[in-house]
Amino acid sequence: MLTGRSPSTPSDDRARPDVAVVGAGPIGLSIAWRCAARGLRVVVHDPASGSGASAVAAGMLSPVAEAYFGERQLTELLLASAARWPAFAAELTEASGVQLGYRTEGTLVVGLTGDDLAEARRLWAYQQGLGLPVTPLRPTELRDREPALAPRVRGGALASTDHQVDPRLLVPALRTAAQRAGALLVPQAVRHLSEVDAAVTVVAAGCGAADLTGLPVRPVKGQILRLRAPGGVAPGFRHVIRGYADGETVYLVPRTDGEVVLGATVEERSDTTVTAGAVLRLLRASVDLLPELAEYDLVETVAGLRPGTPDNAPILGPLPGRPDVLAATGHHRHGIVLTPVTADLIADLVTTGVADPLLTPFQPDRFAGAEPGPGGRPDQMMEEDRWNSR
Amino acid sequence: MLTGRSPSTPSDDRARPDVAVVGAGPIGLSIAWRCAARGLRVVVHDPASGSGASAVAAGMLSPVAEAYFGERQLTELLLASAARWPAFAAELTEASGVQLGYRTEGTLVVGLTGDDLAEARRLWAYQQGLGLPVTPLRPTELRDREPALAPRVRGGALASTDHQVDPRLLVPALRTAAQRAGALLVPQAVRHLSEVDAAVTVVAAGCGAADLTGLPVRPVKGQILRLRAPGGVAPGFRHVIRGYADGETVYLVPRTDGEVVLGATVEERSDTTVTAGAVLRLLRASVDLLPELAEYDLVETVAGLRPGTPDNAPILGPLPGRPDVLAATGHHRHGIVLTPVTADLIADLVTTGVADPLLTPFQPDRFAGAEPGPGGRPDQMMEEDRWNSR
Repeated sequence: MLTGRSPSTPSDDRARPDVAVVGAGPIGLSIAWRCAARGLRVVVHDPASGSGASAVAAGMLSPVAEAYFGERQLTELLLASAARWPAFAAELTEASGVQLGYRTEGTLVVGLTGDDLAEARRLWAYQQGLGLPVTPLRPTELRDREPALAPRVRGGALASTDHQVDPRLLVPALRTAAQRAGALLVPQAVRHLSEVDAAVTVVAAGCGAADLTGLPVRPVKGQILRLRAPGGVAPGFRHVIRGYADGETVYLVPRTDGEVVLGATVEERSDTTVTAGAVLRLLRASVDLLPELAEYDLVETVAGLRPGTPDNAPILGPLPGRPDVLAATGHHRHGIVLTPVTADLIADLVTTGVADPLLTPFQPDRFAGAEPGPGGRPDQMMEEDRWNSR
Repeated sequence: MLTGRSPSTPSDDRARPDVAVVGAGPIGLSIAWRCAARGLRVVVHDPASGSGASAVAAGMLSPVAEAYFGERQLTELLLASAARWPAFAAELTEASGVQLGYRTEGTLVVGLTGDDLAEARRLWAYQQGLGLPVTPLRPTELRDREPALAPRVRGGALASTDHQVDPRLLVPALRTAAQRAGALLVPQAVRHLSEVDAAVTVVAAGCGAADLTGLPVRPVKGQILRLRAPGGVAPGFRHVIRGYADGETVYLVPRTDGEVVLGATVEERSDTTVTAGAVLRLLRASVDLLPELAEYDLVETVAGLRPGTPDNAPILGPLPGRPDVLAATGHHRHGIVLTPVTADLIADLVTTGVADPLLTPFQPDRFAGAEPGPGGRPDQMMEEDRWNSR
């Protein structure tokens, strides 16, 4: 077992790693942590750890409220990962010494108008049909839980098991835990998989996976805002609030330190500019739901790129014809909630060679015949064409 | 005459200045420039030139559209200063080599709803009663001038003589011109007037004038946004647009480089936080008036503090009992438009000792008996009490 060796020992640096991870966001780092803790020699490559989608993510752990029509297999994976989150968070805090802002007050889903509520109720009925714990609340129950909600808000439901974590605390915690377990972080970009020499390579590069693998991963722009309660106090609400407001959808994530993350747009664009219209729509919906937010400081406006896939589900498993290269990307809007299950199951795959049945729907080969990602380079596209040919 | 000497000559540095100016914003710098150009030995004190209200100002030169009920004397000063602006801008560009973004397309005042238009028309009638050039436009004329205006906009008027300048170009230009004329800029704060040794001291310290003089200058918070047209092109409109939109007032100032300044709140507060509610109100009104702004990048959200006075008019002239100390502050929302007339008339006062009749309504002694500014220190308040006693 290699666990506990110093990553800075020169002889270790020169040894061929068991695992090379490309990408030091939550997915790559958690895989590296799990593999290193099992005694594997792990190197993680990223010129800017934590600068991808996780820097913009809100950190909602919402398999229930995000159980959408037609995404049943994804919902199962989300539920499996959310169930792992409490133990994962405890273990990570133990390993890193970092508190993660893990909060268990649950999520309220609310509708501002009658139309908004009708739309929300359709989804609740679907979620209840799956046996998920979403509980419609009477208006008095809703106000008892969150008195700051606007009087206009017509109704809501509680998803008590949908928690939250702070992604900007998660990434440094994972970095510390991975390094303490012996993983070596190399702050350099990988432009081509041939630059990596390891027994197994894990591509956890988010949108960058398209260029590296030819997989159909595309950037999906999201704009978010960060507010801060005035006077350094905690926000005037405790639940994550997911709102339907005059046809817009918005979420509001309160942190104990006073921060509120407010998001998010979902745009088929690859730029990261913040637009006036997006800020307007997010603020309007939010202030309509929670009027006191108008008095909060607006401290950050930012856009990031989520790694989207043709079916909006992640890509988890070996590249066709390349059993030594595992994809762990395409997490789209679900990277934070899917971190524990991705880490555990990819680490299992690395160490045992056996894929958990949970991974079956998310294999890279499901896109056989699909167009490659927009960033796919010609040589990689040809390679993909080869493995995708029937 | 001292004009043309190098400000870095040690013997000059040690000589007692003719004029010490406290504050290197547009007002202080323009006074310094004018005085230095007349051969006076000038020193300007400011630890952060251009970091005050001018950094946040939009640069509208709008004596007509800003001619409000009950401010007739202020309107006369605004008109006098705006009339000086074309020559001032030309002379300053000549002296500094800096283009100021001076634009003469004029200002459109528009009303979104019938109520908004009714409110605007009341003011136009008042302005026309003063003989000011504000010309109501037929809807087709309005659209011919600015096709990007929302179809909902009910009506508007043209104030063709209300121009604009870019304050972030103005301040460096004035700094260069003042220095080239021989003024010495000292990047240090003045905490008390006793720290300054000069024949005449000009207090052009914006809100800081309260602490230095005990004058009733108070901070009036303004929040503004800066947008940028996507793709690096000029904005899709050319006039300054001042809008009434569902009871909100907003202005939109297009720059040729693609920037749009969008403002502004007027708040009786002394903090400089940007609030969600202000950004929401500014964006909503602006996008309602000019829908294409929704697609613009939001590149800056910022708040500044205007130096307000009890009657919202500037304070221009000697402190009571201190003929050697001249106030040039309290310009509130009008600092940029009032720069030329302030510079000329204060420089006249310094060199001739005679006050132009235009200055008469704006003397410091009009606040005799008034409360001092909130920042007034006890010793200065006592001093003011002395001079204010009847």
